[in-house]
Amino acid sequence: MPGAALPTAPSIPSAPVTSAVLDRLRAIVGDKGLIVDEQDKLPFVTDWRGTLAGQAAAIVRPAITAEVSAVVKLCYDNGIAIVPQGGNTGLMGGATPWPMHRGIVLSLGRMNQVLNIDPVGYAMTVEAGCILETLQDTAARHDRLFPLSLGAQGSCMIGGNLSTNAGGVQVLRYGNARNLVLGLEVVLANGDIWDGLRALKKDNTGYDLKHLFMGAEGTLGIITKAVLKLWPAPKDVCTAWLAIRDPKAAIDLLSEAHAASDDNVGSCELISRACTDMVLRHIPGTQDPLKAETEWYLLLEWSSARPRQDGGTGMSDRMEQFLADQLEAGRVLDAVIAQTEAQSRNMWRIRESVAEASRTEGPGLSYDVSVAVSRIPEFIASGFEAVLAILPAIRPYPLGHIGDGNVHFSFMGPKGMDLGTLSQYSAAITRAVNDLVTSMGGSISAEHGIGIEKLDELQHYRSRTELDIMRTIKRALDPKNIMNPGKVLRLG
Amino acid sequence: MPGAALPTAPSIPSAPVTSAVLDRLRAIVGDKGLIVDEQDKLPFVTDWRGTLAGQAAAIVRPAITAEVSAVVKLCYDNGIAIVPQGGNTGLMGGATPWPMHRGIVLSLGRMNQVLNIDPVGYAMTVEAGCILETLQDTAARHDRLFPLSLGAQGSCMIGGNLSTNAGGVQVLRYGNARNLVLGLEVVLANGDIWDGLRALKKDNTGYDLKHLFMGAEGTLGIITKAVLKLWPAPKDVCTAWLAIRDPKAAIDLLSEAHAASDDNVGSCELISRACTDMVLRHIPGTQDPLKAETEWYLLLEWSSARPRQDGGTGMSDRMEQFLADQLEAGRVLDAVIAQTEAQSRNMWRIRESVAEASRTEGPGLSYDVSVAVSRIPEFIASGFEAVLAILPAIRPYPLGHIGDGNVHFSFMGPKGMDLGTLSQYSAAITRAVNDLVTSMGGSISAEHGIGIEKLDELQHYRSRTELDIMRTIKRALDPKNIMNPGKVLRLG
Repeated sequence: MPGAALPTAPSIPSAPVTSAVLDRLRAIVGDKGLIVDEQDKLPFVTDWRGTLAGQAAAIVRPAITAEVSAVVKLCYDNGIAIVPQGGNTGLMGGATPWPMHRGIVLSLGRMNQVLNIDPVGYAMTVEAGCILETLQDTAARHDRLFPLSLGAQGSCMIGGNLSTNAGGVQVLRYGNARNLVLGLEVVLANGDIWDGLRALKKDNTGYDLKHLFMGAEGTLGIITKAVLKLWPAPKDVCTAWLAIRDPKAAIDLLSEAHAASDDNVGSCELISRACTDMVLRHIPGTQDPLKAETEWYLLLEWSSARPRQDGGTGMSDRMEQFLADQLEAGRVLDAVIAQTEAQSRNMWRIRESVAEASRTEGPGLSYDVSVAVSRIPEFIASGFEAVLAILPAIRPYPLGHIGDGNVHFSFMGPKGMDLGTLSQYSAAITRAVNDLVTSMGGSISAEHGIGIEKLDELQHYRSRTELDIMRTIKRALDPKNIMNPGKVLRLG
Repeated sequence: MPGAALPTAPSIPSAPVTSAVLDRLRAIVGDKGLIVDEQDKLPFVTDWRGTLAGQAAAIVRPAITAEVSAVVKLCYDNGIAIVPQGGNTGLMGGATPWPMHRGIVLSLGRMNQVLNIDPVGYAMTVEAGCILETLQDTAARHDRLFPLSLGAQGSCMIGGNLSTNAGGVQVLRYGNARNLVLGLEVVLANGDIWDGLRALKKDNTGYDLKHLFMGAEGTLGIITKAVLKLWPAPKDVCTAWLAIRDPKAAIDLLSEAHAASDDNVGSCELISRACTDMVLRHIPGTQDPLKAETEWYLLLEWSSARPRQDGGTGMSDRMEQFLADQLEAGRVLDAVIAQTEAQSRNMWRIRESVAEASRTEGPGLSYDVSVAVSRIPEFIASGFEAVLAILPAIRPYPLGHIGDGNVHFSFMGPKGMDLGTLSQYSAAITRAVNDLVTSMGGSISAEHGIGIEKLDELQHYRSRTELDIMRTIKRALDPKNIMNPGKVLRLG
């Protein structure tokens, strides 16, 4: 988030990595697995946006779980802090070390094997360092779908996706990352290996430990392997671009789309005119799918694993009938169904290029929040009012995974205002947005997590009882506070 | 499980419920909320099968969360053990007190209000004491589906369903109970109330606490309210009864059914000829859907929220085409699609009456286990072999939610053998089945939980590391061990 100040640094106790410790690390992971050169460390200690510059005594890159276990045990015995890291593509700094970090970064990047694929059982066993896109491709080669899909998929790693419970554009249908998992292997804070790598859809034998490690951002243990669920590959996909009356129309329309599509709504993305125009301005080759002067659009995609039958009705027939009904009801003002792969790609490109376009456009503020799906229209209206009251010339660029209740509530600074000036308003606007979200029973971080950047906001907005439970769990499972210390929770 | 001996009782420390404590309980919940008469206590201290007879000093029935909180705080301060209880319909004794329990039973039965229903947002907020069937009916009145569906639905309560992460016949499509939840309110061991009652599909703000309380069987806290997810009500349902070649054919068929049905497979239940015949023998009014002499059958149901369109293809057309393909492939030997509601009800009645019929048939043994879906055929074959090696005349009655990898691996004793004699074989057979399940990476309790009855089996089959994590969490969140002590885990 440009313009956001880092929270005050928490105390991160770590014993120093002595040369004796370095020797022992090298004995575990080999020369290939140890990076100590300052220049070579840079990509691991800096976040990809370049806004966080951390430090680490060494980058340690184990090749197998036993090495992860041995490294963690060594750190545990010596009180050395560990920052677990996958693709280091997170938006909140969860995988990037703090500037005063004296311990190691433990990168899972060398553990990148698909260990097993079971198309009949719809499951795949993988190592934590597999690139997300590689897993999508592997599933596709077996006529299956691994549905996790997000902007960083070409470089993020599945271990990080699971540790942060990643979201993306297919959550509406398939759920968050945690819903795509059958089993996990995790290295605990003391170096022990928890083998929960079971390919079971049902297992009621005590506490569900896997859900505790997912979303914990590496503060409770290190995910080393996972059994992932697969789905049938989509065969009949229909993508449409709709000019809609307002956000309320989007909610009502989506509510009816589930039944009309045979529960085959894949994505439903709310996009403002402002976002669309910004992409058209900055991203070469994008085209406006619909000449309309309305303020709100929906990118609606239905997909089925059943190929379109000769003479039968497919997704596009059902979508056509549905859109006719919605036009009739006054929710949809105009609409176009993609007739070619290129048209569909163009629609998706607009949606996916908003972040890139906004970086070109200039400084801005963005909030990844969620409320109950049916309260989105109320949130957008009240949110605009609250933010514009603070900075009347700020320009709203809202966008959202509306079916998940998740709005990327974004603003570009007033024309001509530089980052420094905008930053002066940032704290007040952030507070206003998060106060509103909280008063509506919402979440101040729908899918991006807490990491470093929202440390203080979590502390401010979550109840004392809730923070107490989290701290109790953290202290119980990581008594020496060596697992990604200073992230997610303030313990003090 | 008839014939199974109870585990050795763990030590369950509890201060006595003195008359002074009783007075304070009465002051919190009123006369209506307190049961001390021995006769009136019976339904709360005995399990519904009549196999567990426990004790409690009092049954406490709060009417609101604040009363639950006050009762728990009082117990916490005085070191009094609490058995939380919903409908007391569990199969493992999780909700029934141990015979030496000296504390209270805390029954949620008076907290039975539906607090809010949001059909557009597909969510419903309810109190823990709501009867499951009431919630199904409430959803249906709003043209929505709450998919949790199981034998005890007329008397089990949602709080118990969530605490045990209940399964049932719709898990294949909608997931276990934990997948049907957006938010929870929980009273913790010290009486504090955790308000996690958020209606959010996405919320990445720290550890996911709700998944910790679900499946914990009341040993970490008491679920008092929940926000449940809803789905569109089914409008086009097709039920079929298939004679199939063998369990392998069932797996392969199901693997293809997902795509062929547009991902609309609702249920896929494997039923043996032995189970079918037993039901036909004992349950009046049931009819054999198919005259066939094969050993294995599938009850396959596809359902869509989209009403069948005039001139369009509906579920039954797709099912017909699919069954023709499967006959061609040799997996299906014969099949019938229900043409009337009565025919469909008859098929379901056979499936749902197996438990009742087996009680009439005589003494038996049953194991609720799961393995990876694709390994079910191997499990069934090896399991038969292992059990028949111990008691050659035992009669297998297998049955299963095959799409979940969950087999109810059941046997009736040899003809003429009484319960006492069968019980002598029980320990060896249980060990053989659970050894096999474990060697195949499966679960010794797929959906019924641990409670009292599987306490020793969990201890035996789960790794020391896994048990250690569970105990660490239990001790951290319930340091005085007052929440359902002696269930799920042995702490000693």
